Amino acid sequence: MPEDFSPDLAPVELLVCATCRAGQPTDVEGPRPGAQLAAALLERDWPAHVTVKSVECLSNCDSGCSVAVRGGGARWTYVYGNFTGADDAELVHDGIVKYATTSDGLVPWRERSTHFRKNCIARIPPLEIPE
Amino acid sequence: MPEDFSPDLAPVELLVCATCRAGQPTDVEGPRPGAQLAAALLERDWPAHVTVKSVECLSNCDSGCSVAVRGGGARWTYVYGNFTGADDAELVHDGIVKYATTSDGLVPWRERSTHFRKNCIARIPPLEIPE
Repeated sequence: MPEDFSPDLAPVELLVCATCRAGQPTDVEGPRPGAQLAAALLERDWPAHVTVKSVECLSNCDSGCSVAVRGGGARWTYVYGNFTGADDAELVHDGIVKYATTSDGLVPWRERSTHFRKNCIARIPPLEIPE
Repeated sequence: MPEDFSPDLAPVELLVCATCRAGQPTDVEGPRPGAQLAAALLERDWPAHVTVKSVECLSNCDSGCSVAVRGGGARWTYVYGNFTGADDAELVHDGIVKYATTSDGLVPWRERSTHFRKNCIARIPPLEIPE
């Protein structure tokens, strides 16, 4: 965990869609890629103010696996998609830790991974919308 | 305005992306379709607990015009896309009023318009995630 987290940072929630099939046909049996990604992310080390939750469908099925991240009244909420499953746990971890270091959720463009740059599905303004 | 709103319903925020081009080339001048949709929605009558806000980019540019709707700790947040501009104000109004009548944001499938059924970009669980 980076050691420069401010104690003033609001808690962050990473919501991982466990129902995503990542483009698999619906008749494929066994654990879904979304569930595998969620399991891999739950096992990782996170900053103390980040919580990971496995959730049901985020309605982004055409671009799954999907995650959403939010936290506090001053941060933007983001939905990211097109992860392939557990193999992308490191990629998601990296992006979410960067998000968690911000107070507003805005990670500078140059610091975002190519995947995060190209697979932002949507973002939603903070509850306290900046002027 | 429907008269059967419960006074217990949490406030709802409709956020309308004013920067959406709805597929227009970037060199088209004049008001953007997103700004026109926002203006049309701001002029409509809404239930007293619904607020409409024009916001900057929701990062759903490939599927704009876009709106997001949220409200209270118990409601799901939704992002809808592929509106064409001011002509869709009635369609958006209808869907958001239905959302505003719910306490959890879940409008029964049969009550959703075809556009809302087919153009949900993503949804995000309530702050109080149901078990």
